[in-house]
Amino acid sequence: MRIESVDFFYLSMPLVTTEADGSQDALLVRVRAGGFEGFGECEAAPLPSIAAFVCPLSHGACQPVSASVLGQRLDGPADIERIAALVAYQSMDLLQAAHTWSGVEMALWDLLGQARAQPVWQMLGYRHSHPKTPYFSVLFGDTPAQTLERARQARASGFRAAKFGWGPIGQASAALDREHFMAAREGLQSDGVLLVDVGQIFARDVERAAERLPALQQAGALWLEEPFQASAYDSYRALSERSGSVRLAGGEGAHNLDMAVHLIDYGAVGYVQIDCGRIGGIGPAKAVADHAQARGVTYVNHTFTSHLALSASLQPYAGLAEHVICEYPGSPKPLALAITGSHLLRDAHGQIAAPDAPGLGMRVDVAALAPYVVDTEIRVKGQLLYRTPSLM
Amino acid sequence: MRIESVDFFYLSMPLVTTEADGSQDALLVRVRAGGFEGFGECEAAPLPSIAAFVCPLSHGACQPVSASVLGQRLDGPADIERIAALVAYQSMDLLQAAHTWSGVEMALWDLLGQARAQPVWQMLGYRHSHPKTPYFSVLFGDTPAQTLERARQARASGFRAAKFGWGPIGQASAALDREHFMAAREGLQSDGVLLVDVGQIFARDVERAAERLPALQQAGALWLEEPFQASAYDSYRALSERSGSVRLAGGEGAHNLDMAVHLIDYGAVGYVQIDCGRIGGIGPAKAVADHAQARGVTYVNHTFTSHLALSASLQPYAGLAEHVICEYPGSPKPLALAITGSHLLRDAHGQIAAPDAPGLGMRVDVAALAPYVVDTEIRVKGQLLYRTPSLM
Repeated sequence: MRIESVDFFYLSMPLVTTEADGSQDALLVRVRAGGFEGFGECEAAPLPSIAAFVCPLSHGACQPVSASVLGQRLDGPADIERIAALVAYQSMDLLQAAHTWSGVEMALWDLLGQARAQPVWQMLGYRHSHPKTPYFSVLFGDTPAQTLERARQARASGFRAAKFGWGPIGQASAALDREHFMAAREGLQSDGVLLVDVGQIFARDVERAAERLPALQQAGALWLEEPFQASAYDSYRALSERSGSVRLAGGEGAHNLDMAVHLIDYGAVGYVQIDCGRIGGIGPAKAVADHAQARGVTYVNHTFTSHLALSASLQPYAGLAEHVICEYPGSPKPLALAITGSHLLRDAHGQIAAPDAPGLGMRVDVAALAPYVVDTEIRVKGQLLYRTPSLM
Repeated sequence: MRIESVDFFYLSMPLVTTEADGSQDALLVRVRAGGFEGFGECEAAPLPSIAAFVCPLSHGACQPVSASVLGQRLDGPADIERIAALVAYQSMDLLQAAHTWSGVEMALWDLLGQARAQPVWQMLGYRHSHPKTPYFSVLFGDTPAQTLERARQARASGFRAAKFGWGPIGQASAALDREHFMAAREGLQSDGVLLVDVGQIFARDVERAAERLPALQQAGALWLEEPFQASAYDSYRALSERSGSVRLAGGEGAHNLDMAVHLIDYGAVGYVQIDCGRIGGIGPAKAVADHAQARGVTYVNHTFTSHLALSASLQPYAGLAEHVICEYPGSPKPLALAITGSHLLRDAHGQIAAPDAPGLGMRVDVAALAPYVVDTEIRVKGQLLYRTPSLM
C-alpha cells in the first residue's frame, strides 16, 4: 500500500499556562493507507511541527517532512525505516523535522499493525508484552507541604512508585530542596520508590547539582533525572561518578538515536528515558532499548500526555522483562485522556502492559476531540498550505 | 534599552529546486530597540522558524521564542547571553527554537554594535579583525567534466582554494568519485587548496567513507567534510584514525555549543565549521572558537548565503590570526546578494575580513528586497499570529 494522507490535529486545553505540564496541548497525527488508519502523537509544539510538514521546499537538504512521506510505499517495518532515513536526509537542515516525524512514524506502526493484525511490539520482534510497574508522575508542590500531599495522593491511588518533577527544585536553596525530597519520602512511606526530576535546572553546573546529592541519598531517591541540559554529557558523567546510590536518568530530550546513545556511552546514566514522540518514533526508541540492554542500562519510557503516546512508548521495551519501571501520566489534563476512547488501566498487581490488540491497540475517535481542536491556517504566497482537517 | 520588536522576512527566489544550494531562500530578522536597528539571518527553513517565534505557549518548557525575547533589557553582551539562556530553558522542548534564535541573536549583536559604535568582533574581546583567505564554495558537477570546469572557474576568479560539495559523490561508485576528485585537482592546479564536502552521504558507514580516502589523498584534499550525520561522533573518530593526510571537517549541523564541542572532543575532527545562523548565533560560535583553539583544532565559518551571514560568521574568529581559511559563497543566488547593499569583497591579496564598521558592518535595505518577499500568514483560533511585516 501507499501512504495516502497525513493529517495533523492541533488540540489544546482552553487555558494553557507556563506550568511544566506537557499535557496542556497535543498534536495528533492520522495516517491513511490501503483502507487502514493509524494514529500517532508528536510530543512537540504543534504549530512549528505542522509547519515542518507543510512548509515550502528550501533546498535539497531542507525539504518539508511531507516530501519524504506522502505517496511512499508501506508494506512492512523496513519501509518505515527507509522513510525515516529519507526524512533524516532530505530534512537534514529542518530542525523541527524530528519532532514532526515522530508522530507520523508512530502512526505508521499503528497502521501497519491494523493491516497485519499484529501489535507493534510483535512487529518489533518481541514474543511477549511484559507488564510494567507504572510510577505516578507529578510535579513538586510549591511548598513541601504540597509535595507531601501529592506523595500521599500517589500512595492513596495505589502507586508504590512516584516521580516528582520540576516545581521549585533548584530555584532556591539546597536546604529547601531537601525539605521537598523528605516530604516526598514521607508521603510515599518507607517502602515507596522515589524518583526525582529536576528538568535541566542546573544547565551544566555539576557543583550545584552535587549539593543536592546528600539529601537525595538521605531520602532514598532511586534516580535523579535531567540535572543538566540534554547534551551536557560531561556534566552527566562527572555527577554520575559522585552520585553513589542515586543513579542519573535522562534522555527525554533526545531527538535522534545518537543523542540517547551518547547519554549512555558518554554521560554514564543508569536509566535512559525515551519519548517516542520526539526521538523519531518507535523504531529509534527500540534501537535505544537494544543499546541500553547491551550496556546494562535500564530503559524507561518518557510519557506525560495521552494513553496513545503511552502505548507507543511501551512498545520499544515491551519484551524486556527486567526493564520493569514505566512512566504513567499521574494527573493529565482532560484533553490527554480524551484522545483515546480506551485507556491503559492498571491490573490487579498495579501493572500495565503494551496492549495485545493490533497496532498501538488504542481507540481514537477524532470526532470526540472537537471541543479541543485549535483551528489553524497557514497561507504562503496566497496559497493555503494548511487548514485544520475535518474531524469526520 | 529594551527590545521593542522582532520582525521576520521570509525571502525566496521565484523558483526553488532540490539542488543543495542553501541560498535559494532566506529568513531575515530585524530587531529594534532604543532607536537602533539590527539585522540577522536564520540559516533555516523560514516557515517553521517563524512559527517557533509566534506559536502559542504549549507549557513552561515549550514557550515560543518571542516569550524570552520581546521586552527584554539589552544593555550589553551579557544581556544577549542571559536571553540566550532564557530561550534555551523556556523553549527547551521546542526543537526549532535554536534556528529561530540564531538569527535574532545575530541581530542583537548588530544592534548593540550600532548603539556602541563598535564592531561585533571588538565586543567579543578581539583587538584586530585578521584577514581570512576565502575559498570558493561550489557544488560538484553532475559529471567530472563539469567539476573540472568549475574548478577552472574558481581559479580564473582568483581563488586559490575551493570547496566542492554534494552532487553525485557517494551516490555511485568510489571509482566515479575518484574522477571527480582528480578533475577538481586538475582544474585547481597543483598549488590549489582542495576541500571536499560530501554532505552526510555515508550516514554512519565508516567503510563506505573509507573507500574514498585513497582517491582523496591522491588528489591532495586538505579536508573531507561531513562524511557522516552531524552527531555520529564514533564514525567521525573511527574515520579520522584512518584518514592520514586528509583531516575531517564538520560542525555545520550543530544547533548548540555542545554539539560542536562533542564533534571536536569525541569526533576528533581537524576543522570545526560553524554556522552562526544555526548554532544559536555569534555567542556560542565564539565559545566554539575558544574551545577549538584550546584543542588545536582549526575554526572555519560555514556560510552559503548572504554577506550579512558572512560578516556574522567571521566575527567569532576574527581575532584568531592563525585560523585563516574562510568559506565564501561562490555563486549564491541573486537573492543572497541582494540582502546587503554592501559586500565583503576580496582585497589585493585575495582576502576578506570582518568589517571595522559598527555591528556586523553591513547595510541592509529591506525595501529593496520587495521582489523576494514571500507573503506569509498564520492564523490560530481566528487570531492573526503572523503576517509578513511592512517593508517600509
